Amino acid sequence: MISITSAEVGMKINEWHRHIQKFNVTDAEMLKAEIERDIEVMEEDQDLLIYYQLMAFRHKIMLEYTLPSDENRMELSEYLNKIEGHKKKLDNMRAYYYNFFRGMYEFRNGEYTRAITYYKKAERKIPTISDKIEKAEFYFKLSEVYYHMKMTHISMHYAELSYNIYKKHELYSVRRIQCHFVIAGNYDDLENHEKALPHLQEALKGAELLKSKNTHIYATAFFNLGNCYHKMDNLNKAARYIEQALVQYRKINSDVLPQAYHDLALIYFKQGKKEQAMDCFRKGIRSAVDFKDELFMNLFEALDVLYIRNGDTPKLLNIFSRLENGKGYPYLEELALLGGNLFDYNGKIEDSIICFKKMVYAQKQISKGECMYEI
Amino acid sequence: MISITSAEVGMKINEWHRHIQKFNVTDAEMLKAEIERDIEVMEEDQDLLIYYQLMAFRHKIMLEYTLPSDENRMELSEYLNKIEGHKKKLDNMRAYYYNFFRGMYEFRNGEYTRAITYYKKAERKIPTISDKIEKAEFYFKLSEVYYHMKMTHISMHYAELSYNIYKKHELYSVRRIQCHFVIAGNYDDLENHEKALPHLQEALKGAELLKSKNTHIYATAFFNLGNCYHKMDNLNKAARYIEQALVQYRKINSDVLPQAYHDLALIYFKQGKKEQAMDCFRKGIRSAVDFKDELFMNLFEALDVLYIRNGDTPKLLNIFSRLENGKGYPYLEELALLGGNLFDYNGKIEDSIICFKKMVYAQKQISKGECMYEI
Repeated sequence: MISITSAEVGMKINEWHRHIQKFNVTDAEMLKAEIERDIEVMEEDQDLLIYYQLMAFRHKIMLEYTLPSDENRMELSEYLNKIEGHKKKLDNMRAYYYNFFRGMYEFRNGEYTRAITYYKKAERKIPTISDKIEKAEFYFKLSEVYYHMKMTHISMHYAELSYNIYKKHELYSVRRIQCHFVIAGNYDDLENHEKALPHLQEALKGAELLKSKNTHIYATAFFNLGNCYHKMDNLNKAARYIEQALVQYRKINSDVLPQAYHDLALIYFKQGKKEQAMDCFRKGIRSAVDFKDELFMNLFEALDVLYIRNGDTPKLLNIFSRLENGKGYPYLEELALLGGNLFDYNGKIEDSIICFKKMVYAQKQISKGECMYEI
Repeated sequence: MISITSAEVGMKINEWHRHIQKFNVTDAEMLKAEIERDIEVMEEDQDLLIYYQLMAFRHKIMLEYTLPSDENRMELSEYLNKIEGHKKKLDNMRAYYYNFFRGMYEFRNGEYTRAITYYKKAERKIPTISDKIEKAEFYFKLSEVYYHMKMTHISMHYAELSYNIYKKHELYSVRRIQCHFVIAGNYDDLENHEKALPHLQEALKGAELLKSKNTHIYATAFFNLGNCYHKMDNLNKAARYIEQALVQYRKINSDVLPQAYHDLALIYFKQGKKEQAMDCFRKGIRSAVDFKDELFMNLFEALDVLYIRNGDTPKLLNIFSRLENGKGYPYLEELALLGGNLFDYNGKIEDSIICFKKMVYAQKQISKGECMYEI
């Protein structure tokens, strides 16, 4: 289990830098050791490692200056000179990473305008970064961040900048695929699924070449295609792709399994393929329990009410109430819409209205949840 | 009637500059005259006038150089020198305005990512603009643009930057009020109406001081407050503020009258004050006809179906279909939600479901309409 994010470690590096500047050797050493332990258990993040290297170099220079032994001890003038010599490039890099990680940290805490402020500061350092790939990396991160914030147009803007660099560099196939994912996700949010498809097909083509090394991205390429077809109501194709995604996710025992089983069960239910649906439903519940995935346990219960028991309003309302929290609202919105349409189709119009009203309520809560301002 | 926008005139100034650079005197003169005619009928825009002045200055220097008379004719070296002397400051200003108007133009054509690209180029010139008020002006424009694009967080970011400058400058009371409007509008979009209120109260306080000179902004301050209370379901306060807005809008025969009458009629209907509602309804229809405002003619018809005839499904579906276009979808979404809740309340649940489903449809169309990408 990953217990610490790179954003949090980035913030610790910012603090480490403050200790280095004040020559707080003990604090700096302790924090350095702590950060090194964190890096061991942290999610993989190339940027963070570069930032760590930069600061470790800065730390080393500080130690040379503060060494007690006379022979090795550096003069202050020499120290300042050494810092100064690298100053411009290092300072720019450091400022870039400082702001980048600070932005990421604020973003993860839901402080969106603050996150934007820091990202913009980092962006101002971009012209001093000569390496194209570094730039592409930054643009990609921004496109991802804005995608999650549902700021579709801004996300698209950065995804395009990033993609235009990566597409010229054969080596960066994973990032190229991820760019396609983000672009397609934005198209999905704009209800332009037919424009998402070619990007997802490109992504699958790229992921196929990596399948022996990177099963996760190969599985995700299938899964994203399946979800896109699902949104387009092309259930046959949706089912076929999600089946293939499941084959891959099972190989690596991915924690996406509950969701993939859930989506496939739902598609089979919609198609009236009850037997196949029940098979996915049972396997899915088992995997949700294995991963202690409460969200999907709730969503499987909802499938039970909607498609197996064919309605049970008090039970459904109970599930709705369990989804009423920050992470749950988007799922509540989708589930309530599903229920609204299904009950309408089955002639249970009273229940249908309950669902539609709950959907409107969830939409409001989602908007509300995005507000963190104190202006 | 305003027939040309400042964005379009800005684009003409960009073209004018190309002619000046190529010494196309005739084309430049013709375009200059055309632009001057446009400015007469154009919406008021301080920025455009500054951009025009800059270019007119550049035009004059070109003419001095190309004059046929020997005595006044400038030497090429002198010409270049003259251009060069002002070059840095002028070039930055020109680049700023070029990109700013280009962005505005792309925005108006719905080319959102392109608009963002140009706005960002303009923003890069901001540090060279030493005047605080110029900066505040640019930030304000951006906050407005992003507000209309419903990119709430970005809009909030720029509104804050702009407001922090304007609040220190007593003179700019109109812009300060407009900043409050944008911030409040963003809070409304985030369903945080209680946070919008203090900004709208501040705006009203400021607008009160200007009421003899600027009736429109005074009316709008009342109207925005009324709408905010309406969204909070505080119908008494909503009605009181919109009544006051109407008094002001009538003084200047504003084209907002149909909307203000419509909103007040709706509130009275919701309150069960049928007589007052009918009075607003009749006056509102008359003003919608006067202003040839088809959108509000449709919306008054919808009020008729919902509150006067108490339902008429084929008629309502007919109105819905007339709202199915880019400008109409947000109104369709709101109207369908109103109908959905009202019919549910009146026990007409079949009609309620028709409305809720139409609302979901409108939401999808709104998302779809925002997509202009070719990536």
